[in-house]
Amino acid sequence: MTTGLPFDDFRALVSNLPKPAVEAVEAVQQRDAVLTKPAGSLGRLEEIAEWLAAWTGRAPAVTRPLVAVFAGNHGVTAQGVSPFPSAVTAQMVENFAAGGAAINQICIAHDIGLKVFDLALDVPTADITQDAALDERSCAATMAFGMESIAGGTDLLCIGEMGIGNTTVAAAIYYALYGGTAQDWAGAGTGADAQGIERKAAVIEKAVALHKPHLKDPFEVLRRLGGREIAAMAGAILAARVERIPVIIDGFVATSAAAILHAASPDALDHCLMGHVSAEQAHIRAIEKLGKKPLLNLGMRLGEGTGAALAVGIVKSAALCHSGMATFEQAGVSDKP
Amino acid sequence: MTTGLPFDDFRALVSNLPKPAVEAVEAVQQRDAVLTKPAGSLGRLEEIAEWLAAWTGRAPAVTRPLVAVFAGNHGVTAQGVSPFPSAVTAQMVENFAAGGAAINQICIAHDIGLKVFDLALDVPTADITQDAALDERSCAATMAFGMESIAGGTDLLCIGEMGIGNTTVAAAIYYALYGGTAQDWAGAGTGADAQGIERKAAVIEKAVALHKPHLKDPFEVLRRLGGREIAAMAGAILAARVERIPVIIDGFVATSAAAILHAASPDALDHCLMGHVSAEQAHIRAIEKLGKKPLLNLGMRLGEGTGAALAVGIVKSAALCHSGMATFEQAGVSDKP
Repeated sequence: MTTGLPFDDFRALVSNLPKPAVEAVEAVQQRDAVLTKPAGSLGRLEEIAEWLAAWTGRAPAVTRPLVAVFAGNHGVTAQGVSPFPSAVTAQMVENFAAGGAAINQICIAHDIGLKVFDLALDVPTADITQDAALDERSCAATMAFGMESIAGGTDLLCIGEMGIGNTTVAAAIYYALYGGTAQDWAGAGTGADAQGIERKAAVIEKAVALHKPHLKDPFEVLRRLGGREIAAMAGAILAARVERIPVIIDGFVATSAAAILHAASPDALDHCLMGHVSAEQAHIRAIEKLGKKPLLNLGMRLGEGTGAALAVGIVKSAALCHSGMATFEQAGVSDKP
Repeated sequence: MTTGLPFDDFRALVSNLPKPAVEAVEAVQQRDAVLTKPAGSLGRLEEIAEWLAAWTGRAPAVTRPLVAVFAGNHGVTAQGVSPFPSAVTAQMVENFAAGGAAINQICIAHDIGLKVFDLALDVPTADITQDAALDERSCAATMAFGMESIAGGTDLLCIGEMGIGNTTVAAAIYYALYGGTAQDWAGAGTGADAQGIERKAAVIEKAVALHKPHLKDPFEVLRRLGGREIAAMAGAILAARVERIPVIIDGFVATSAAAILHAASPDALDHCLMGHVSAEQAHIRAIEKLGKKPLLNLGMRLGEGTGAALAVGIVKSAALCHSGMATFEQAGVSDKP
């Protein structure tokens, strides 16, 4: 093992995660059976009501949803992996603050709070084809920062990101964790053409080859191939589990942070839903590796938490249906004999 | 032709439908190209923004969404096609009025207005295995009632329904319009078992055989095999086109009303989105016959407009993203070179 002390706290947390609240789930199942609808007819809304109960320990309710967007910059952009310049990361953080991005509008549409965390944007991570993205202490500190990010409170956390170059970084993480070929995981990102995607695949291949001897450990995958926003997202997802806050994961990049935790412990994402499957070609494969099924499929590939935020409308509806519907007895409706 | 004067007004309407507003669509495309996101990265949200402009003639906006639920009773329930008694239709209408149904909660979650229209629930249509469901005048009058139903105003209409026995009626309509076998179109509805589904298929077969000589005309399909709520939904969808109101169609039964209009004129549903593909097995086949792609797939099979209402959150978000996002120039974000 090449890892040292900085990751020990996280290893301990991941190996001893809170379990689902069985009694709360049973209460949901009992109530669901007498609500004025044919059994099973609300489909995934019924599953979501149980999931909310499992991970909050209470009757399903969503009153303070929050989108947390983590932004980071990446030294690997020196390899020409993105058609946009790195300066766009900070420019988009300004755009979030000014209310001008897509995620701002979706949060308005669904009454969702929005917090943006920029992570040392003027100190990009190292180029992963040359060196580890982060040293152990920086990576662990960024995870800890991510854990603190939810301290203001929420009862449904959406995890999103912004970072020019970070589909390359996410693809490298998937390739390290799941194998296959670099081409399997390289996609168009913000809009690379076929030649650009080939270049990305070559960069991913080179980075994973460089770090190969150290990639058995998921936390080493994170610090060597990841980035600050990915480390922070992993921390936030983990903190939400500890605090009993259900999580909706956004797209291709946010899912790579989740994949690190899943590799560390297969039950680490039981409190997480996948909000939307991205048009980024390899996202569906990553989701399947996590044993998940996305709620939405709208052909989006923007990040920023947009796919997760759109799913909040579904989750809110699931909670309200469960809590607000009348029973057959209350409504005087005849049940199936 | 066996039809008479009552349908002539509808035939005239359907043959001369308003066309999309080309200039409004072009304005959306021009603005979309300079919004702070990679081109195409909002996927179907971008398509929806264009669709709203096409069918309202204005910049995309959703300020007064409405769910209209139409309820009817069906003589074919005498054939034992549903595990629930017909009395449940009126009981559920009371439940809608009292705010206790699933659709009430989803409307709360998404700030949607709700209107429920019960259509002579104490006068079920004739048993379609014995006679035409409705005479021409009743069918045309019910379509006209449906057209009036939206007079209170809305800028996004969701079409839903309630009616014990109406998945049998909808399946008969699809079988008449699209062929195949009765089994292809018969499904579980509110929860029929395998034997119940076989019984439904036999009933559908018998009904379509009885009316076979008259089923070349879509309006005859509607009055012979349909029901009051289906006629009213067809009227409402048509009126929305005339009034330039975009429509979201709900599930298996609501789609059968849309299918009548589509059979009368292939462009009749250009102002309609399919909100959700039902778990009712044949719904996806019906949607494909209409050349549509549903927005959501959440395993629901409840009707009431629930699938359409859930899609409102997506449509609202699409409108807000288009209208509220900053341009690259406004935000000082570098565009792709």
